[in-house]
Amino acid sequence: MSASQSADIEFWFEFGSNYSYLSVMRIEHEAHLYGVHVAWKPFLLGPIFRELGIDPSPFLLQKEKGAYVWQDMTRQCRKYGLRWTRPSVFPRPSVLAARIALVGTQEAWIGEFCRRVMTRNFVEDEDIKEAQSLLPILHDLGLPATEIVERAQSEPIKSLLRAQTDEAHRRGIFGAPTFFVGQEMFWGNDRLDDALICAAERRRT
Amino acid sequence: MSASQSADIEFWFEFGSNYSYLSVMRIEHEAHLYGVHVAWKPFLLGPIFRELGIDPSPFLLQKEKGAYVWQDMTRQCRKYGLRWTRPSVFPRPSVLAARIALVGTQEAWIGEFCRRVMTRNFVEDEDIKEAQSLLPILHDLGLPATEIVERAQSEPIKSLLRAQTDEAHRRGIFGAPTFFVGQEMFWGNDRLDDALICAAERRRT
Repeated sequence: MSASQSADIEFWFEFGSNYSYLSVMRIEHEAHLYGVHVAWKPFLLGPIFRELGIDPSPFLLQKEKGAYVWQDMTRQCRKYGLRWTRPSVFPRPSVLAARIALVGTQEAWIGEFCRRVMTRNFVEDEDIKEAQSLLPILHDLGLPATEIVERAQSEPIKSLLRAQTDEAHRRGIFGAPTFFVGQEMFWGNDRLDDALICAAERRRT
Repeated sequence: MSASQSADIEFWFEFGSNYSYLSVMRIEHEAHLYGVHVAWKPFLLGPIFRELGIDPSPFLLQKEKGAYVWQDMTRQCRKYGLRWTRPSVFPRPSVLAARIALVGTQEAWIGEFCRRVMTRNFVEDEDIKEAQSLLPILHDLGLPATEIVERAQSEPIKSLLRAQTDEAHRRGIFGAPTFFVGQEMFWGNDRLDDALICAAERRRT
């Protein structure tokens, strides 16, 4: 059984996605309360949207929904006690951040790294594309930043991100965040609690 | 000030919409708990989707999302303690039901009528298009069924439904259910509680 299959909840997310921001900030704390283990599954939403004929984002394509989303984000962040700035660039390219997260999926720093990248994008309204934006985050976490970024840019990790994005598509993912508990799929930050309850119930049975 | 402006929460819904089903079944009871008054706003989603280039429904247009929605509905209904049958015809034409609801928006029977129509569609998996499907519902409520259906099919009510659907579009509605509390828009059954809390807070201030 692979690490991903033995995990209680699979958390599929994208660093450019605003609703992924909400779940990245919440999941580690909430999963801990439920006694559920999180498998972090960074992937790229861009290729999935392109496959579905939605380019570059449903929020840009459909102006009514787009206008609503920023109202909704302001209220959702207030509800969860999260800071929020509407990003001046949306969606921000996130390939390198996703690759670094892939390097760290089994490491203790994964949660904090992801929260800091999301904070940079959705609170500080800063770019997350270049190595110079992400190196200080790794450095502040006391990690060998340069080595990690080099590994993130190596061929095996690049392939792994492509494979992970392909897997997302194959499993019917059409947006982010998406959660899996076994074969059960839950879409959206609004379903995080339902997914955690489902995972906690499975653990007990 | 019109009746709709003085209402605490405006509830925009469509009888063919599965997520509207959830809110129709929940709203009267929950709004009562919050001390909030509901203004029932039936409208037609079809013309709105056509304006947005989505035809006939985003769940039919995007097969991944469509497949997911029925999983999600099963779980959501379990969560809310609602019965559920995936309708064999989707979305069901709902023009007459919406017109009857418009006749009843200020009447005590509006909530129960809407719940029975939704039950017919999403529990009994039966047509809600024809008068003979809807007359028994009105009759069972002890209402002058024939008179109400005649009024629903009169020109003023037909115009009112067109005007209400136009208003939905003008106000940026892109799906159902949608709630308004003043100018604040909340989209989806997942936001019903947030909208009710918002309405209850406004009442207090």
